[in-house]
Amino acid sequence: MRMFEIEVGAFVQALPLTFDIVKINLDCMPGMTAYAGFFEICSPKKGEYVFISAASGAVGQLVGQFAKILDLAAQKGRGFASFTIAWYFPEGIDIYFENVGGKMLDAVLQNIRPHARIAVCGMISQYNREQPEGVSNLMNLVWKSVRMVGFLVFEYYHLYSKFLEFVLPCIKEGKIVYVEDVAEGLENAPTALVGLFTGRNIGKQVVLVSSD
Amino acid sequence: MRMFEIEVGAFVQALPLTFDIVKINLDCMPGMTAYAGFFEICSPKKGEYVFISAASGAVGQLVGQFAKILDLAAQKGRGFASFTIAWYFPEGIDIYFENVGGKMLDAVLQNIRPHARIAVCGMISQYNREQPEGVSNLMNLVWKSVRMVGFLVFEYYHLYSKFLEFVLPCIKEGKIVYVEDVAEGLENAPTALVGLFTGRNIGKQVVLVSSD
Repeated sequence: MRMFEIEVGAFVQALPLTFDIVKINLDCMPGMTAYAGFFEICSPKKGEYVFISAASGAVGQLVGQFAKILDLAAQKGRGFASFTIAWYFPEGIDIYFENVGGKMLDAVLQNIRPHARIAVCGMISQYNREQPEGVSNLMNLVWKSVRMVGFLVFEYYHLYSKFLEFVLPCIKEGKIVYVEDVAEGLENAPTALVGLFTGRNIGKQVVLVSSD
Repeated sequence: MRMFEIEVGAFVQALPLTFDIVKINLDCMPGMTAYAGFFEICSPKKGEYVFISAASGAVGQLVGQFAKILDLAAQKGRGFASFTIAWYFPEGIDIYFENVGGKMLDAVLQNIRPHARIAVCGMISQYNREQPEGVSNLMNLVWKSVRMVGFLVFEYYHLYSKFLEFVLPCIKEGKIVYVEDVAEGLENAPTALVGLFTGRNIGKQVVLVSSD
């Protein structure tokens, strides 16, 4: 079975031989991105509230599971408005894993808690716009003493063994699973690619070129 | 001489008796704000480029002098566009002390260097707007691995003795001076207050109620 990964910049590290293709996806770029953003940038603490935009995607699905393992109150979001977030998080948000940007970020900023951390992993809602949406509620960074940190996963690969130490037992115990959205046939690749920008995919989007 | 300070939330700490009114302004809220934002949040390093919006104000003037003491390339800004910043900082900006917000922040983000730090102290250009201006270039936080941290000075008062240790010798050696913009007469207070929002003041804006 050959798979073509749509994600740009994904690459595979040396892995234990028992890992199959699903584990590889968990283990390399998406896994390390989720780990670095959540554990290193967001420094999660007991009792905190976690909001993950694009939680159904390659990276976000793992952040949600990490939060669950730590027993934090986590919620995924797609197209949330401020009042919806307030309904899910009446106490506000301590940790925001940002993958959407624009209106979503603005809505989160209206519901942010003091000393919150925002890991900015991406802003998929903005990539195909000629002019990105403006984010208006940035003064909440000051009122609430919020830290907002952009990051690129390749700068965190020195944490790879620490990541494996955390993630391998979780996989063995079934506490972490990795979902992929497989589009069959190269002819379906364009549709699958476009679907990433509307959040159509559930899990990491891959294209099965051939099952030979 | 009695002075009325326009800044909301300013308060005076116990000070060495030799300090006069000017030193008190340097020493309490504006001084600590500049110190916490610049040294604690921005962690300045040799050879870095520092941009300070509202550098003529109560806090900004001190950040500029701190940068000069560390021998960093510092530039103040008022109403800068992206290309003007690029002219002053052909290499880009490592440290941005943010007090203006809106278009200024957007322009800085277009000229930000990898691993830059932004201390968000305030956004005075936005305070009187019904709808704050949107900031569009936030994806640069990701591309450049930028840390953007909002802060309130009262959370940093545990650093007060460390701050005095740094600042007192600098004052004695004349390396730091503190400029105030004195409006004479209570009848001029409203104009002085409005002037803060257009950057009319040079130094901290105070109102001299009476010189008795």
